[in-house]
Amino acid sequence: MSLEYGDTIGILGDGQLGRMLAGAAARLGFRTISFGPGEDSPAGQVCGRHFTASYDDSAALTEFASHCDVVTVEFENVPVSAAETVISTGTPFRPGANALSVAQDRVEEKRFLEDAGIACAPWRAIDSLEDLIAAHAALGPDAILKTRRDGYDGKGQVRLSTDSDLAAAWAELGAQPAILEGFVAFKLEISAVIARGADGAVAAYAPSRNVHEGGILRRAIVPAPVATDVASKAQTLAARLTERLDYVGVLALEFFVLADGKLLANEFAPRVHNSGHWTPEACMTGQFENHIRAVAGWPLGKASLLHGAEMENLIGEDAAAPVEDLLARGHLTLYGKREIRPGRKMGHLVRLRPL
Amino acid sequence: MSLEYGDTIGILGDGQLGRMLAGAAARLGFRTISFGPGEDSPAGQVCGRHFTASYDDSAALTEFASHCDVVTVEFENVPVSAAETVISTGTPFRPGANALSVAQDRVEEKRFLEDAGIACAPWRAIDSLEDLIAAHAALGPDAILKTRRDGYDGKGQVRLSTDSDLAAAWAELGAQPAILEGFVAFKLEISAVIARGADGAVAAYAPSRNVHEGGILRRAIVPAPVATDVASKAQTLAARLTERLDYVGVLALEFFVLADGKLLANEFAPRVHNSGHWTPEACMTGQFENHIRAVAGWPLGKASLLHGAEMENLIGEDAAAPVEDLLARGHLTLYGKREIRPGRKMGHLVRLRPL
Repeated sequence: MSLEYGDTIGILGDGQLGRMLAGAAARLGFRTISFGPGEDSPAGQVCGRHFTASYDDSAALTEFASHCDVVTVEFENVPVSAAETVISTGTPFRPGANALSVAQDRVEEKRFLEDAGIACAPWRAIDSLEDLIAAHAALGPDAILKTRRDGYDGKGQVRLSTDSDLAAAWAELGAQPAILEGFVAFKLEISAVIARGADGAVAAYAPSRNVHEGGILRRAIVPAPVATDVASKAQTLAARLTERLDYVGVLALEFFVLADGKLLANEFAPRVHNSGHWTPEACMTGQFENHIRAVAGWPLGKASLLHGAEMENLIGEDAAAPVEDLLARGHLTLYGKREIRPGRKMGHLVRLRPL
Repeated sequence: MSLEYGDTIGILGDGQLGRMLAGAAARLGFRTISFGPGEDSPAGQVCGRHFTASYDDSAALTEFASHCDVVTVEFENVPVSAAETVISTGTPFRPGANALSVAQDRVEEKRFLEDAGIACAPWRAIDSLEDLIAAHAALGPDAILKTRRDGYDGKGQVRLSTDSDLAAAWAELGAQPAILEGFVAFKLEISAVIARGADGAVAAYAPSRNVHEGGILRRAIVPAPVATDVASKAQTLAARLTERLDYVGVLALEFFVLADGKLLANEFAPRVHNSGHWTPEACMTGQFENHIRAVAGWPLGKASLLHGAEMENLIGEDAAAPVEDLLARGHLTLYGKREIRPGRKMGHLVRLRPL
């Protein structure tokens, strides 16, 4: 399946990733339709049409899919049932329902990664307080308890240490299926953003060093300060993951880098990723364009670096700075969100650096 | 007047320039509304809203302007009356009605350029066959007869030489107010694309060498193969023109370069320009972003070159090539036009080169 220009790409999700995907699609001559619950959403503002509806509204999904030549996602927590509804209409769905399904469950995700030979930090599935007590004894005392589903940007997780009240932590998370991740004494975090085309070809971006604050990505710096073999191993593992998933599109695989250079996978996102927001400015082909090319069945563009780069997220009040100041600090992208809220991603800056 | 992000920019015109302006506006967090006669137009496909109406429909223009925080143009032949209707609603109009008015009349344009001390190739205003006969004797035999208004991409003009039938040429053009432009033995053509902010600051792009075929721009190459002082003189003259026009936004001034390096202005376009389509890929800040920043009252970004570049237009059947071939030839931009017609600009390619 390969699109012609002028064809229509549907985007499940209505946030900033959809907005930036729609921009890349427009530059390649495509039309776009977004689908999501938000009124006046970042993606809805820029797509040719927007369906404001819930992801479990199968009538709306069917109508949406009927106007699209391919459907993709910008949000990995779109229910798998929504993808299945799209697929049932005969409209191609890329990257594929399987990738969504695996990524939405932290336990399935770790199993899938380990089955693919991608080492993860120590973890245990938690289905009861008893499981938690046993796992904490085995992996703790420093560990993170996370819901199996629906967490992002530090939400749905509790940090544990020596004197943690495990019963309280279990209750805080809602006594729902969870995962305990043992603390890893990592040196830094990196992610490998990679595109895989419908033909199986991959375009791997240089891994970025990612700096988080309060569970939210604050900065991504490229090239990451790691040895060449570490960077290329991260790319190789990301490529292997996309192949195992029979993936079409852009995916990000996050790693902890240990002091000895060993890589432990943390999680992956089956979509374009915040840690790749520097790619449009710094690479031959940005992540948004390559995702669109992949889902359109077009050949990928080169991911090679033209510049070094530092990407900084504008979170909450960061975006209240005078626009003159923001513009003076780098290439500015804003997401069309009028209301500033704490922790809300409002935009980002990219500063180019000599390689 | 300075916009806040989330504000709305109106675009008079519905073509590819509007499409690319809307993309730049979206990246800066703005909403966009386009206005033009086309159904399913390149700009209308990507703006949040589109008014399909004629430029002389003052009720539609008033309604359009009422939803916009500022209005700009992507097409210099938008009637001045449309700009005046917008201005009468109190919505700011940038670059300004005067620039449109001057640029729409080739005689007014040459007078304005010469009054600003910008030398032009020899020309005469033609209001009758007698004028044409006299002017052809003075400037000819090689010369071009053009309508004063409404010509673009080689339309509305007749080339004259020694044995031309002047009466037939005059009739062919419809016996309407015209201009005769004497032939100039130029070495090459360049254009200076420049942005001027609401604060009067300018950002001048490196002049490009422009290669035309059949009256249509085929390629723009940067840096242009001219001496440094010639390039900087072109930028200085373009800056002077924007200042004289009290211009806000991006403007392109085209020149003939003679063998001795002398510059003769040909015409200017009060808008982003085809000969600046390489700027998003090759410069710190592209022409579309700088136009949006200017009309928003935001500070301009640097126009400095990061790479050399060659821009090639995809005209008519050029766009029928397999997309794989087009993608292999450079950064591809397509305009969302489904129907290929001879001479129709369908998209463009940008190839980067080391500086």
